[in-house]
Amino acid sequence: MRRMTPILCATVSAVLFGVPAQAQVLKEFGSFHVGGRQVSLSGYPVTESVFTQGAAPTRVDPNGDFEVEQMYVQYLIPEPQRAMYPLLMWHGGGLTGVTWDTKPDGQPGFMQYFFRAGHPIYVSDAVERGRASWARYPEIYKTAPFFRTKKEAWEQFRIGPIYATDPSERAAMPGGKFPVQAFDRFAKQFVPRWTSNDGITQRAYDALIQKVGPAVVMVHSQAGNFGFHAALNAPDKVKALIAIEPAGAPAPGPDLDRLTAIPMLIIWGDNIEREPVWVRQQPFSLKFAADLKARGGDVEVIELPKVGITGNDHMIMMDTNSDQIAGLIEDWMKRKGLTQ
Amino acid sequence: MRRMTPILCATVSAVLFGVPAQAQVLKEFGSFHVGGRQVSLSGYPVTESVFTQGAAPTRVDPNGDFEVEQMYVQYLIPEPQRAMYPLLMWHGGGLTGVTWDTKPDGQPGFMQYFFRAGHPIYVSDAVERGRASWARYPEIYKTAPFFRTKKEAWEQFRIGPIYATDPSERAAMPGGKFPVQAFDRFAKQFVPRWTSNDGITQRAYDALIQKVGPAVVMVHSQAGNFGFHAALNAPDKVKALIAIEPAGAPAPGPDLDRLTAIPMLIIWGDNIEREPVWVRQQPFSLKFAADLKARGGDVEVIELPKVGITGNDHMIMMDTNSDQIAGLIEDWMKRKGLTQ
Repeated sequence: MRRMTPILCATVSAVLFGVPAQAQVLKEFGSFHVGGRQVSLSGYPVTESVFTQGAAPTRVDPNGDFEVEQMYVQYLIPEPQRAMYPLLMWHGGGLTGVTWDTKPDGQPGFMQYFFRAGHPIYVSDAVERGRASWARYPEIYKTAPFFRTKKEAWEQFRIGPIYATDPSERAAMPGGKFPVQAFDRFAKQFVPRWTSNDGITQRAYDALIQKVGPAVVMVHSQAGNFGFHAALNAPDKVKALIAIEPAGAPAPGPDLDRLTAIPMLIIWGDNIEREPVWVRQQPFSLKFAADLKARGGDVEVIELPKVGITGNDHMIMMDTNSDQIAGLIEDWMKRKGLTQ
Repeated sequence: MRRMTPILCATVSAVLFGVPAQAQVLKEFGSFHVGGRQVSLSGYPVTESVFTQGAAPTRVDPNGDFEVEQMYVQYLIPEPQRAMYPLLMWHGGGLTGVTWDTKPDGQPGFMQYFFRAGHPIYVSDAVERGRASWARYPEIYKTAPFFRTKKEAWEQFRIGPIYATDPSERAAMPGGKFPVQAFDRFAKQFVPRWTSNDGITQRAYDALIQKVGPAVVMVHSQAGNFGFHAALNAPDKVKALIAIEPAGAPAPGPDLDRLTAIPMLIIWGDNIEREPVWVRQQPFSLKFAADLKARGGDVEVIELPKVGITGNDHMIMMDTNSDQIAGLIEDWMKRKGLTQ
């Protein structure tokens, strides 16, 4: 009986109030880890430590078995569901699934937008990041992690041309849409990243597709490559790919013939020409898109300034016009028959 | 208009179907970071790395500014709301907020239970863990992290007396309620922990209480001490404390006079006497409870085996009878006027 209630509610609310059927009913929510394996370590010295103030000392033996290389996934299933498939949201490098949640300025983000639009949402923390956990290095991971500085994020993400430690001395991009007063709150989302974990991360994403697919995959930045390869690895299960400023893309070539049945949307923000990293990165996805189109693929590339939307940086989903961009994505999904 | 819809839905469903008013309507959800500060590092060498397969090399300069010591909080607000206050759920050591979510065996956990019971839920990842991120050591954190082994968890959490690498060779606790076939999935939730971060973690929890309180706080294991001290630091904002197998507690003494107006529930599972760690730890909270009671405090201690509930281990919220324990907590909150 309970399962019927939300459907009734949506109908009642639409009939009584004349509003579009917003999915505010939560049919189900939860989380899981996917992928990973057991590894064993031995030969490390045993020590004693106090872990909790006021508690007795604990013997620490680092030798033993660990689970590694899993990823974390959290899902929110709305009712009524208007989308054909679950929407998987894959964050970029040095970040977590928080990318898609409430924006640093406290406003609703892409997760809220697409949940309310009736998409079952699966937001992940990739291997090594956030709730996916990370493993000892160099014994398990091969390298030490990299910690992104605020200066790097400010400049490479095209939030502004000049970073300063003192927020009042930072220069923002003219006409930029990042809520710069919330930049330090954004920096609280940064997590360390490794350069040596691409293979295990791809495997975990592939395992997620097998578990949750068929699905629509939305990727950002570093996850672009993981998304494109997930589609190559399971073209029957990836039903569409939405790539926001993807860093890297598969090289043009016959492999791309496997992707021609998968609608793809690639979105680039503004001021690419101001930041050498993106001047180098953008051509990978543009060449990929051109080759895939030439092979009969269904690819749309939107460079936002070319359609009159200016001021977007690398973190488009956090910009003040994020609802506008989400709406553009939602409209594309409607045109592709992926949602109502 | 939209804000009215969920209330109507709950009423309609209760009237039409005669079911209790389950909170299945999601009024709001989101996340934020709280606490933390900026630190600057200098003097490290600059290198070049390829971060994303197929992408151009990136120059890595580790010197600069970072946000550190923040914690992460995710909230789900049900409608109708039946609780007086938000319910803050604080996980134990070497774990994250995933503790409270879907159980390792895939069944709904405490988060689902209390959300459906009408509590606004605030689940956090403490400083250094999960989506809270962690900072460079030894430059910022003072020590190296500790990685919990599966053997330590199996034995110290009283899941069983004998751990083995091969799951089929592990000995479970006789009559134990942990879903042992899901133990390796549970181990995917483990995150590294530091011994030197108690102070910064307490500060972040205190900041959370100031931001979200007045609130009811539910703590597990290591978070016991953080919860007790959060109550000492803001006795006007912590409206009740539910401590599940708290590791450590404040020493008896006049300080506890500040806590006499805060209803407290302390829960201990089964087989304490089989594991030396808990034989040492349990008396801290029992002495705390006795002293607080003597000072006129409102403390209830439930040792589950003494009320006929046997087989619970340290991870009570993951046990097969977790709904029974959640129900016991919910009943206590009703008796204290904290929820309807």
